[in-house]
Amino acid sequence: MKFQAEIDVMPKKEILDPQGKAVTGSMKNLGLAEIHNVRIGKHISLEIEAESEQAAHEKTEQACKSLLANLIMESYTFKIQAV
Amino acid sequence: MKFQAEIDVMPKKEILDPQGKAVTGSMKNLGLAEIHNVRIGKHISLEIEAESEQAAHEKTEQACKSLLANLIMESYTFKIQAV
Repeated sequence: MKFQAEIDVMPKKEILDPQGKAVTGSMKNLGLAEIHNVRIGKHISLEIEAESEQAAHEKTEQACKSLLANLIMESYTFKIQAV
Repeated sequence: MKFQAEIDVMPKKEILDPQGKAVTGSMKNLGLAEIHNVRIGKHISLEIEAESEQAAHEKTEQACKSLLANLIMESYTFKIQAV
């Protein structure tokens, strides 16, 4: 079976996010001062061949831990859907 | 009212994604050959002060169009939630 995973990798809350801070500042210059606390991370979509949703879940977990996220500075969440 | 927006900005399907291609290749080396078609974009979370969900929606739309996404190469989707 084929599954689609949608993964969000975000900087942890305690970690300063300079890219997000810069964008928050730019919002003011664009007349969007109502927008604040911008944080920027990665969104990753991928396809997995697996026998079950459980197996796809484990593979995605493994990919996040070993390659996609730096667990010292980032946290991840994901959703899996059969396609 | 305060709203939280979760925005995904992804490279368009017709656009080559070299970072995603590189990660797809690395998956094989990690013993995760079942994973393919990796695409990498940005995930942005932000807070908005707005009078209604409709107003927050419009502000987010404006932020995406004018700053967060390059509409030639990228497409965006977002969800808004009252907090």
